[in-house]
Amino acid sequence: MLCSRIRTLRTMRQAVPLDCEKAKALLQSTDTFLFDCDGVLWNGGDVIKDANAVVNKLQELGKKVFLVTNNSTKTRDEYVAKCAKLGFNCNEPQVISTSYLTVQYLKSLHFDKKVYLVGSSGLSREMDAAGIRHLGEGPDVMEGNVFDGRLDHIRLDPEVGAVVVGFDSHISFNKILKASSYLKNPDVLFIATNRDERFPMEHIVCPGTGTMVTAVAVASGREPTIMGKPSREVFEALRRQHGLDPARTVMVGDK
Amino acid sequence: MLCSRIRTLRTMRQAVPLDCEKAKALLQSTDTFLFDCDGVLWNGGDVIKDANAVVNKLQELGKKVFLVTNNSTKTRDEYVAKCAKLGFNCNEPQVISTSYLTVQYLKSLHFDKKVYLVGSSGLSREMDAAGIRHLGEGPDVMEGNVFDGRLDHIRLDPEVGAVVVGFDSHISFNKILKASSYLKNPDVLFIATNRDERFPMEHIVCPGTGTMVTAVAVASGREPTIMGKPSREVFEALRRQHGLDPARTVMVGDK
Repeated sequence: MLCSRIRTLRTMRQAVPLDCEKAKALLQSTDTFLFDCDGVLWNGGDVIKDANAVVNKLQELGKKVFLVTNNSTKTRDEYVAKCAKLGFNCNEPQVISTSYLTVQYLKSLHFDKKVYLVGSSGLSREMDAAGIRHLGEGPDVMEGNVFDGRLDHIRLDPEVGAVVVGFDSHISFNKILKASSYLKNPDVLFIATNRDERFPMEHIVCPGTGTMVTAVAVASGREPTIMGKPSREVFEALRRQHGLDPARTVMVGDK
Repeated sequence: MLCSRIRTLRTMRQAVPLDCEKAKALLQSTDTFLFDCDGVLWNGGDVIKDANAVVNKLQELGKKVFLVTNNSTKTRDEYVAKCAKLGFNCNEPQVISTSYLTVQYLKSLHFDKKVYLVGSSGLSREMDAAGIRHLGEGPDVMEGNVFDGRLDHIRLDPEVGAVVVGFDSHISFNKILKASSYLKNPDVLFIATNRDERFPMEHIVCPGTGTMVTAVAVASGREPTIMGKPSREVFEALRRQHGLDPARTVMVGDK
């Protein structure tokens, strides 16, 4: 059964089904499987056929499995809950989200100032759990005409030492303005969870984090450090924390 | 007096003061002067010293003068009122704003559908004056969680045939989403007033139209036709409408 399931894995460079021999060879040469989540393990709230069985079987065979997601709107424990609901046997250390990577990155720098956050609760709650102070979450909309009063009402917090941009459905002029204003100081870090452009849906185009990140990058004239795929940071973090051997690791994605 | 005033003009390639001889030669070889507005004629509500006297004197000498602005937040009649207040003798045909250029561009295409507008009243009022139907102006903010309900509440108007992006202090997730969704149809035009990145102010960075345009460009995966400087469209429009001779035209800017 594994043999038929593993056929659904496709190599990164050639999107061709694996035959049974190739699947066996892949299993022998691989210790660690990194799985994309959306589009590979599930689509929204629906599990992709047999993906849970494949993931669980690989773990039974002693393989390390990590779930890697650019989505910054959920915390790791929310992912574990989702996995349980969809039949994946996974625990928190196996979930590599950009929220988690961002917090790990800030911790690695011994960051002790405040974060100005353009993002949602996935990021703020990971920061709370790590004791990282932050501001900016939630709606922040422009009242009246932007050029009346010459924006004197804008207040910046001198304790802010980093701007973090993730997915934020409350993205607004005020948020882009504040993020860019903090970034005027070259000592303020600029971190983004990822630059995914969009989520195509049937009738609409849902803007991805990349639209928010790019707006701040254009206004500030600065480029962020990216935490998620395809940035190397995600793999470096896994290597640091779990000692992965890249030669014996396979990434399973849909792109 | 003109001689001393014209010294404040600087040639585009070399920002050096003109001596009296060079100023006279410039006057002899030039029929038309195009002036940037913000930073050249005025700073916000304050006239830049002698700029009004220079502009008025050039007109007395029989030169054509145009005020060229990337600002899309005002209509041309609002500019004329501002000019009068600051001592510039100018009338509406002399004001070349990106709102005006956008409407002229749509008219040149015999555009008869609706515009989805990410912008402010400078654009909407120019469109009203030209009988171009539009929607989208004003606040449009996300309520609740973007992924609850799978964005089923988003309604697109099938009559929209163009997306126009100018300066919009109400820029929001919903607006980027709707603009990008309309642009999914390759027949829908994508027009932007300009791509100015930011307006630096003393303590803050005010996002420019370029931040809004780029957000829509990233989400939609499309590139807009640009109406304002440094796009050629502004000069082409002047050539079409006023028969300017580029060889006898000088642009006076601060960049």
